[in-house]
Amino acid sequence: MPIAGEVAIVGSATTAFGVHHDRGYLDLLAEAAFGAVSDAGLEMDQIESAWLGTAEPGLTGLVGDSGSAVAESLGFAPRPVTRVSNFCCTGMEAVRAGALDVAAGEHALVLAIGAEKMRDVPSRGSLVARTANLTHPTLAKGRTAPGQFALLANRYMERWGVSRETLARVAVKNHAHAARNPKAHFRRPVTVEDVLAAPLVAEPFGTLDCTPTTDGAAAVVLASADWARANAEHYVLIRGFGLAVTSGYYSTFFDEEMDFLGFRSTREAAAVAYRQAGVTDPRRELDLVECHDCFTVTELVNYEDLGLCGRGEGGSLLESGATTHGGDIPVNVSGGLQACGHPVGATGVRMLAELTDHLLARAGERQVANARLGAAHTLGGPGVVSTVAVLGAP
Amino acid sequence: MPIAGEVAIVGSATTAFGVHHDRGYLDLLAEAAFGAVSDAGLEMDQIESAWLGTAEPGLTGLVGDSGSAVAESLGFAPRPVTRVSNFCCTGMEAVRAGALDVAAGEHALVLAIGAEKMRDVPSRGSLVARTANLTHPTLAKGRTAPGQFALLANRYMERWGVSRETLARVAVKNHAHAARNPKAHFRRPVTVEDVLAAPLVAEPFGTLDCTPTTDGAAAVVLASADWARANAEHYVLIRGFGLAVTSGYYSTFFDEEMDFLGFRSTREAAAVAYRQAGVTDPRRELDLVECHDCFTVTELVNYEDLGLCGRGEGGSLLESGATTHGGDIPVNVSGGLQACGHPVGATGVRMLAELTDHLLARAGERQVANARLGAAHTLGGPGVVSTVAVLGAP
Repeated sequence: MPIAGEVAIVGSATTAFGVHHDRGYLDLLAEAAFGAVSDAGLEMDQIESAWLGTAEPGLTGLVGDSGSAVAESLGFAPRPVTRVSNFCCTGMEAVRAGALDVAAGEHALVLAIGAEKMRDVPSRGSLVARTANLTHPTLAKGRTAPGQFALLANRYMERWGVSRETLARVAVKNHAHAARNPKAHFRRPVTVEDVLAAPLVAEPFGTLDCTPTTDGAAAVVLASADWARANAEHYVLIRGFGLAVTSGYYSTFFDEEMDFLGFRSTREAAAVAYRQAGVTDPRRELDLVECHDCFTVTELVNYEDLGLCGRGEGGSLLESGATTHGGDIPVNVSGGLQACGHPVGATGVRMLAELTDHLLARAGERQVANARLGAAHTLGGPGVVSTVAVLGAP
Repeated sequence: MPIAGEVAIVGSATTAFGVHHDRGYLDLLAEAAFGAVSDAGLEMDQIESAWLGTAEPGLTGLVGDSGSAVAESLGFAPRPVTRVSNFCCTGMEAVRAGALDVAAGEHALVLAIGAEKMRDVPSRGSLVARTANLTHPTLAKGRTAPGQFALLANRYMERWGVSRETLARVAVKNHAHAARNPKAHFRRPVTVEDVLAAPLVAEPFGTLDCTPTTDGAAAVVLASADWARANAEHYVLIRGFGLAVTSGYYSTFFDEEMDFLGFRSTREAAAVAYRQAGVTDPRRELDLVECHDCFTVTELVNYEDLGLCGRGEGGSLLESGATTHGGDIPVNVSGGLQACGHPVGATGVRMLAELTDHLLARAGERQVANARLGAAHTLGGPGVVSTVAVLGAP
């Protein structure tokens, strides 16, 4: 059976995201994994298979380069563990692969783990520097992630008449949200003035327009919907799961629509996930969204690509307050990548754990009232890879 | 439905393995992918999803770090492509993940590609040097792959009274096999004297005891058995597929059986695959085997771990001629890793393509007569990851 409607999340956990110089990659991975299994009311011995999402094991001496990191830290041997990697979609991809494992009936109870340790290396050896120095030919020109998305920001502001202050208010919103999230990297609210006064990274972005560099891990336990209905203490259903891989950021050869105002990968992934979930009007039907706000502008573009508003309307949707907690389509009530941080392999799994908490009405101070249907979205590489998952209360 | 018996390989292709300074990673990947799709009698537009196995994209500027390498080179956008990685089992893992994708019914026609470009960097930056310098703490002591397996070789020879010449005869056999394989890296037969006189790498291994460093790619097209029966020009069935991840090479904490004479990971993966395939006596029931002869001793150990003979009998099984082409259980008639080379992500896929050719009676000069059932095996990292797949004629 395909994933949609047939696979459930029966347990989830997220470590605190932040700077963990006192804890290694395996410590974080184990905390998340055992946390998710415990949340499911299970023992690790009952889990039959695992999938690991880690994007850059080279940052920490290749730990996490293969599934054996899980075997070692969880005492999981000799069960199957496979690492998947797909830029910033790596975490969601671990869940998608785990869901296929369940959907195929190959294994009944499957763990999907995302983990990344990014703060153990100095900036010179960081993910950003690696990307700039050792990467695809079209990227190997010092085009870091902030530099790439800054191109989009400038184009977006110019094309749609969006102000620098509107971009800043994405950060203001998400940092305010994070004040209610004990797992977020940054929990101090910021003002528009703070964002505008922050040190410049890549025009127009200052540091508060950018997701920070963060350590963290998250995990979910997956089972069939049938198993969940019969056995689970609590569960949510995967209603749709889309992955789209394009190559459109720098080249119109692969994406004739590429206009530096949005990402075809997100639109395609959303189309798949929404079709599977039966969502035709995401603005009305979704109760909350976690999206890939790696930079302030990205969230505005995501609104449009995810169908929460029309093209060019991202700024006004934000300014309307609709995407703020309490609005009719709250986005990134966790604090998003902006304030949670973005340990690459962990992020997508964290998003799904966040949605799970809301759909199970256990999200504490940041609970979205009456949440029944939510979407999570990640965007990877230079906009070439996107995943969209729709989760629903049973 | 689970993979076993329900997923078919309907097309396969392998590039020439060797030193391809004139061709890049994407060139090799595309040749294998289009070759497999063409062999299936399909067009690339009909393929719905893909899985990419590449172990070390860091060797070639991070190309192959995510699925977008496939989108770019095959014009595959916006279809899903996910990269998997699991040490030297990476290629088999791409096929296993693709098979789950089919078995789940998520996608009907799925491409699994393995590719690795290892010769574009000097030895100082090679996979071996990376492993020695930037890796897991327990490996970061100059313990390269030859050094690791040399420990096993010395122990194996001492424990079972196996001679240096017997090890050498593994290389002699596999290089002789490769003379019939136009895709192999090395096609010149070698003698025991050649092996013994080759430059020393790590006592007792000389260069001819070790798999070379090689560029290459391979791909298979996967579909459900039902689809294959109704539509395929030719196909073979995946009868069993086991993955086992342990952590036993250096530590008896995780593997109390670890004695430097075999690998629990192989035994566990084989147990799963054989159970699924209904194989109870592999020596009698299998018609051919491709196994992970990364070093000469590894093939002898594999015989035992794969149940082709009892413990300590690997040397005598080899000397009996049973595993030579024409024997009753021919092993590595392709030339194996010894002579084909071992482009890490490609190897497992190449093995499955090799079995497919024999099961379809189209393996040319190296055809194993009346082949109906074959097994492929890869062993990754310091023996901690193994896959075993059993393929059968329909």
